[in-house]
Amino acid sequence: MSDSTLRDLTQPLIDHAEGQLFLNEAFKIIVEEVLHKGTDAEEKVCEWREPESLALLLDLQLRDTGESQGRLLQRVRNVAKYSIKTSHPHFFNQQFGGVDYHSLAGRFLTEALNTNLFTYEVAPVFVLMETEVLKALRQLVGWTDGDGIFCPGGSTSNMYAMNLARYKLFPEVKTKGLWALPRLAIFSSPGSHYSVQKGASYLGFGTDSVVLVKVDDGGRMIPEDLDAKIELAKSQGFVPLLVSCTSGTTVLGSFDPLDCIADVCDKHQLWMHVDSVSWNPHKMLLAGLQCSAFLLQDTTNLLKRCNCANASYLFQQDKFYDVNLDIGDKSVQCSRKVDCLKLWLMWKAVGSTGLEHRVDKAFLHVRYLLEQMKKRDGFQLVSTPEFVNVCFWFIPPSLRGKEGNADYQDKLAKVAPVIKERMMKEGTMMVGYQPLGDLGNFFRVTVFSPHICHKDMDFFLDEIERLGKCL
Amino acid sequence: MSDSTLRDLTQPLIDHAEGQLFLNEAFKIIVEEVLHKGTDAEEKVCEWREPESLALLLDLQLRDTGESQGRLLQRVRNVAKYSIKTSHPHFFNQQFGGVDYHSLAGRFLTEALNTNLFTYEVAPVFVLMETEVLKALRQLVGWTDGDGIFCPGGSTSNMYAMNLARYKLFPEVKTKGLWALPRLAIFSSPGSHYSVQKGASYLGFGTDSVVLVKVDDGGRMIPEDLDAKIELAKSQGFVPLLVSCTSGTTVLGSFDPLDCIADVCDKHQLWMHVDSVSWNPHKMLLAGLQCSAFLLQDTTNLLKRCNCANASYLFQQDKFYDVNLDIGDKSVQCSRKVDCLKLWLMWKAVGSTGLEHRVDKAFLHVRYLLEQMKKRDGFQLVSTPEFVNVCFWFIPPSLRGKEGNADYQDKLAKVAPVIKERMMKEGTMMVGYQPLGDLGNFFRVTVFSPHICHKDMDFFLDEIERLGKCL
Repeated sequence: MSDSTLRDLTQPLIDHAEGQLFLNEAFKIIVEEVLHKGTDAEEKVCEWREPESLALLLDLQLRDTGESQGRLLQRVRNVAKYSIKTSHPHFFNQQFGGVDYHSLAGRFLTEALNTNLFTYEVAPVFVLMETEVLKALRQLVGWTDGDGIFCPGGSTSNMYAMNLARYKLFPEVKTKGLWALPRLAIFSSPGSHYSVQKGASYLGFGTDSVVLVKVDDGGRMIPEDLDAKIELAKSQGFVPLLVSCTSGTTVLGSFDPLDCIADVCDKHQLWMHVDSVSWNPHKMLLAGLQCSAFLLQDTTNLLKRCNCANASYLFQQDKFYDVNLDIGDKSVQCSRKVDCLKLWLMWKAVGSTGLEHRVDKAFLHVRYLLEQMKKRDGFQLVSTPEFVNVCFWFIPPSLRGKEGNADYQDKLAKVAPVIKERMMKEGTMMVGYQPLGDLGNFFRVTVFSPHICHKDMDFFLDEIERLGKCL
Repeated sequence: MSDSTLRDLTQPLIDHAEGQLFLNEAFKIIVEEVLHKGTDAEEKVCEWREPESLALLLDLQLRDTGESQGRLLQRVRNVAKYSIKTSHPHFFNQQFGGVDYHSLAGRFLTEALNTNLFTYEVAPVFVLMETEVLKALRQLVGWTDGDGIFCPGGSTSNMYAMNLARYKLFPEVKTKGLWALPRLAIFSSPGSHYSVQKGASYLGFGTDSVVLVKVDDGGRMIPEDLDAKIELAKSQGFVPLLVSCTSGTTVLGSFDPLDCIADVCDKHQLWMHVDSVSWNPHKMLLAGLQCSAFLLQDTTNLLKRCNCANASYLFQQDKFYDVNLDIGDKSVQCSRKVDCLKLWLMWKAVGSTGLEHRVDKAFLHVRYLLEQMKKRDGFQLVSTPEFVNVCFWFIPPSLRGKEGNADYQDKLAKVAPVIKERMMKEGTMMVGYQPLGDLGNFFRVTVFSPHICHKDMDFFLDEIERLGKCL
């Protein structure tokens, strides 16, 4: 006990009035730096610093003694300044972007309330609200009934599906583990999210259990190959467990043909994930990280039966209200953040129609972007976009017409990383690139934010040209 | 496409100025309802409503059209009003409570920035910050070097340990799954958190793999029994994998004897969890939900080797900066919230010394509470507290001196639920109760919040007496 004796610890350690004053000042800085300047197309997306110099600038080290309020407010400003402005109209780096102020108000309220979403007694509003939001999401999927839960991200949602599928087929896995089960096989496409691999490893299946089904030129799973791979797996002694389909693959934005895959699943009696659904409203719907719903059609309480541990300190059965409202035992988490309020408040603000507009608007901008690309030299599509991901190579003038050269592909693959480095160091824009299978590095621009307009698309193309023209 | 045609979708759909105005108004309501009234001892902790009437009151249903700003602000107020005030000085229901305003400012900033913590390019500040905060936490544990990651809650942290332990012993589990491994055994105590069971199920071990070691009267794991259970498991063909110890069990707050357990682990070459550590600064340190660190001593990049999937769209190896800064592949999540900023800003504000004061203060209040209990009739301890959990039965006047009666235990077990119902319906206080093994329902008061003072402890005891005296 250091200098505790100097303080009267019998008195409250935190002064509410002083704290609220600090919060008020911090709020003003957040609005100014992140929401005002951070969304201004004239300002930078990124204030690049080398890691060593950024660490020095931020003075991250934690010490024994505290700091003044003024110094702390300067820290709030610095964190904002050197962080990426994900709501900037020129942030195209990831599958999220933009800010919704109603959602953000919901997020602030969530943080202030600091509710743990496991029981009705401690989270009455949010138990009811999560149930209602999940119902509304299921209705958009087209399901009249079912179950679900909000998870910390889409990877976790996908893992829920894999875990549920095996429990449904072999309930004994919960107590006896995978040793008691035959070898299982999971089917997915090479374009599916990497969480299928991570989940296979984490949940004990092993990544060898994941069978990759062939895709067509557009990156869509081929049902005939799925059928063949299932037959093959069976012949090798595997029990086919589930097909993890994708509606909008990570890179190309491809949609697996769900109807045809459903027929194959029916034929072999497989769990079809998408039959359960992982849906991330923190992406296109702008709910903010994290907001990922795992939805399923089941009405037999499968989720709870699979995951429950019946902890008697939390889920007592002799409570004075309906204990079915204690939804926490459906989760593999104990402490669980409230992820529904932000989506609910935003939805209340703009209605389903307003959310629909955002999706429509994104498609409209993608169409505009594609038209403009056609009018310019050097923009070559990787595939025809099905969704709001536009994948393309930028061919700098020096490489145009050199497709036949032996080193063309190597040189082309080096273009995107250099342009990316330049844009980040100048801070004008952010967009991702990646290779895919045999294809060398190409850009993937994701058109998500409802803040953008045609001039931002024009800026995007101008900027790629400007940064890449001398390569 | 509904009435999209009525709107010019080429223009931004969200007006920043209007949005910031709404946020400003919502912020005022949050401060007033949650932080000002919500921390006032004269106000209610809980505004109890039956689920049906609460659902009606809140009008949760989501519709096609949006609502006015005034209506939405009223919704913000209503959500606050009917939610539990977890920062109220009379909230003793869970292992968290109270508000730290610097942390809260960090949380608001986190939400506004909406950063996804996977790569340096998109999260430069937070990659460096998380590394620094984990280092500081490890130093408090007593480790000079190591690794770690923030997880969405302590259950996930515990699962990380179980997953790592098996990967370290049998790296082939990542590709081949548990089928390629001998049956494994996990050792824990009956008082350990239920996430050990959930993890065993989720990760494919099965709950039968969890061997419960006997505990002493204080709920602490008995090392001799651990040794015996390990030998027994070996003789039954199991490979002992890890011991999941607990420093502060959920209900009693017991501390397993780590040194003696370490000797047993050394003897049998077992992974000792606590040798990796799950630490939840969202509990006693007031960082706010979710803030859970998984720490380990490993310096061989075990965490990344175990969890990586090397997704080429995110973790490209040809970036212009040191790609070791792309820490996201250590995680089993893809999208991952920033959980370090709030803790970092709070720590900067009060220093390690300020955090230490909070812990000291909690122990001081526990001592006071125990002294006061001794002075009153009817408060009977379940065990001598080691930590800040105080577990006790309240014996109402009608049961005092009736310990010999055949129905005494049954009657006593019914006391806590009734008192709990009364306090919630009146909204004056919240505290949890539970049975444990053969012991009937008792209260567990957790003394966490740095806002409380002796009079809140007095109020707690008065209120239990008032609500229970006529039982």
